[in-house]
Amino acid sequence: MEIKDDEVIDDLEFKNLKLIQKKDGFKFGIDSVLLSDWAKEIKEGSKVVDIGTGTGVIALLLSEKSKPSKVYAVEIQKEIADMASRSVKMNHKEEIINVINSNIKTLIINSDENEDYNKLYPNSIDSIVTNPPYMKVGTGAQNDNISKLISRHEIECRIEDIAQVSTKLLKSKGTFYMVHRCDRLADVICALRKYNLEPKKLRFVQPALDKEPNLFLIKCVKNGGQELKIEKPLIIYNQDGTYTEEVLKIYNKVN
Amino acid sequence: MEIKDDEVIDDLEFKNLKLIQKKDGFKFGIDSVLLSDWAKEIKEGSKVVDIGTGTGVIALLLSEKSKPSKVYAVEIQKEIADMASRSVKMNHKEEIINVINSNIKTLIINSDENEDYNKLYPNSIDSIVTNPPYMKVGTGAQNDNISKLISRHEIECRIEDIAQVSTKLLKSKGTFYMVHRCDRLADVICALRKYNLEPKKLRFVQPALDKEPNLFLIKCVKNGGQELKIEKPLIIYNQDGTYTEEVLKIYNKVN
Repeated sequence: MEIKDDEVIDDLEFKNLKLIQKKDGFKFGIDSVLLSDWAKEIKEGSKVVDIGTGTGVIALLLSEKSKPSKVYAVEIQKEIADMASRSVKMNHKEEIINVINSNIKTLIINSDENEDYNKLYPNSIDSIVTNPPYMKVGTGAQNDNISKLISRHEIECRIEDIAQVSTKLLKSKGTFYMVHRCDRLADVICALRKYNLEPKKLRFVQPALDKEPNLFLIKCVKNGGQELKIEKPLIIYNQDGTYTEEVLKIYNKVN
Repeated sequence: MEIKDDEVIDDLEFKNLKLIQKKDGFKFGIDSVLLSDWAKEIKEGSKVVDIGTGTGVIALLLSEKSKPSKVYAVEIQKEIADMASRSVKMNHKEEIINVINSNIKTLIINSDENEDYNKLYPNSIDSIVTNPPYMKVGTGAQNDNISKLISRHEIECRIEDIAQVSTKLLKSKGTFYMVHRCDRLADVICALRKYNLEPKKLRFVQPALDKEPNLFLIKCVKNGGQELKIEKPLIIYNQDGTYTEEVLKIYNKVN
């Protein structure tokens, strides 16, 4: 497998999966690993969309964790979508993962008259996973390169856009899994509800037992009934700085 | 102080406060104690409304914890409002706490032409505290007496009603403090935002470290900027069944 000079092949340390990343670009983090685990209940044979797949880490992990029949991995940035495509090939997942280089807002077609390999049909998807840009435009460090900026900020993809396209794509009772930053919780919940994605399960992620949470994992059901279950927090590090048993399990380091 | 045959005087175990409760009625719980502590940052001299005060426990605790100049303690049920009034007198808090037996929806007047001791003016209140009925009508046990039913279910007082009246009463940048049940988190956040009560601080309450949270405490600011801070969870019990250090502090059992 050919990689470029500014790229590296990283080991996902899960079922021998490998991932092409930029040496100095946006690297996947624990949030993606947690999301793929959060979404692993997705049923075998499901049709899944990964919105903003980046280098494809969630699509790859999910292809092993929940055995979907198809993952449409959508990425707006051409160069990053190309990396994801090559990672898919490198892992021999071409049959399952279809990387689509597209803006999510123009992803849907309403009939098959003008069929297009890079388009999707409304109400056709079982589950959606997304680890979107966390920051509002104009917040946080702005001195990144443009690619990192798009990965981190809501330049091309606001929470509302994700909610709107997700509810179009999902079958009724289809499931939606997202990871996001705690300071955006109200934005996320209200945007999802607005588009009939009803929050059903929520879990906060704390760096340590005595630290405030920084991330949350949320599961919604399209047209679901109103009842939210909040799970106990997921703690990342023990007091001695090692990963907790639960995180080691997620990373597949213990049985 | 005269009490009725079906009443008891309970000791709030805080600054010698006492509370009249029904022997077999709705008793205040730890949620009210936690809320009064959550709201204790309310500034000295503030004008406060306690929506759905019940027997007045939060108004009484708050009168000691944050030294407001006035607490308007609103209760729709006549018999319970009467108990709250007598508790206020018993604790010599008549100067500070004004129990109003009213539906919150008819609580506001817009001019002082027809001044009424039991009415309040728009944009006049610094802070609101509320421990509202938790359950939607038609959910949970329905075999209670009607008074308990009103205290527990949203028969007379929905989250939306509370948000609507609160935003009318509060000054701009006024603060709103609420305790509620986790399964209603999405309902609460969306209703508050709809009425410009922006969630700023959120804390989940877990019965124990390894248990999922059942309650949450929320602070909003009227017309506040969008940035939510989620605090580390409040844990009620140690593994041996004793109260945690933090809860003992809230109950004033340690320094």
